[in-house]
Amino acid sequence: MKVEFINPFLSSLINVLATMAQTELTPGKPKIKKGEVAQGDVSGLIGMVGPQTKGSFSITFDEQLALTIMERMLGERPDEINEEVTDMVGEITNMVTGGAKNLLGEKGYDFDMATPIVVSGPGHTITHKCEGAKIIMPFTSADGNANIEVSFDKL
Amino acid sequence: MKVEFINPFLSSLINVLATMAQTELTPGKPKIKKGEVAQGDVSGLIGMVGPQTKGSFSITFDEQLALTIMERMLGERPDEINEEVTDMVGEITNMVTGGAKNLLGEKGYDFDMATPIVVSGPGHTITHKCEGAKIIMPFTSADGNANIEVSFDKL
Repeated sequence: MKVEFINPFLSSLINVLATMAQTELTPGKPKIKKGEVAQGDVSGLIGMVGPQTKGSFSITFDEQLALTIMERMLGERPDEINEEVTDMVGEITNMVTGGAKNLLGEKGYDFDMATPIVVSGPGHTITHKCEGAKIIMPFTSADGNANIEVSFDKL
Repeated sequence: MKVEFINPFLSSLINVLATMAQTELTPGKPKIKKGEVAQGDVSGLIGMVGPQTKGSFSITFDEQLALTIMERMLGERPDEINEEVTDMVGEITNMVTGGAKNLLGEKGYDFDMATPIVVSGPGHTITHKCEGAKIIMPFTSADGNANIEVSFDKL
């Protein structure tokens, strides 16, 4: 998998958060993940299956950033990560992956998406178990950090 | 989704753990998940995509049970959940879902599997975001508890 394949997910995420929650994320440098582990408090994960490949995508948020996004969408800030927040993270996961699916489909890389799963727990870590490379991309914002990770078996 | 669709995952899990790690799990009562949340320390998750449906599967272990399974497979007990343990949980996720895929395929329910993702973190919770019912099934053992959760959009 090439680093370029992260770009559709990157632009889709920036677009989704700007549109839905007026939240600007600053992307860091994408890198092939070797050993290092991204940590966060709430994550959305989704599987992808296509004729040429299969893989997985995850997006992980710091709690404060997730609560801020929620506040901007609903006008009220939850005290903690509750079911509304995990619903929102699942929805963001779907929208970001759907946007990337459209962009990658234009390049001839088709896949179908499974349904998202949301993980909640302070400081959990996520490992994509995939034969191909795992690409991780950190984001910073005034309200906390996020990162996305994409992994495809072939590409 | 009907409760019966959990059975291929149940029998596949019992078979995989008995074969790979001489570990006997006692299944509890499967139930439609409404509000309650399963907690664990290390989880394997995988997406499923088929012509009739899409969904997700997860298996969550207590740390002590995961370490015991590892010890039985390798002859040595890790001190904590390390990369070898998450590799093993990813492999179990693949094998259990693959076994269930074969059993469901015989009934005419086909799906392809994405690649697994493993989550590690004390007491994390998992929520499948799916339009269909979510079925959860608890397991107990002498070495700790586990649970599996299956969710399909239609079935």
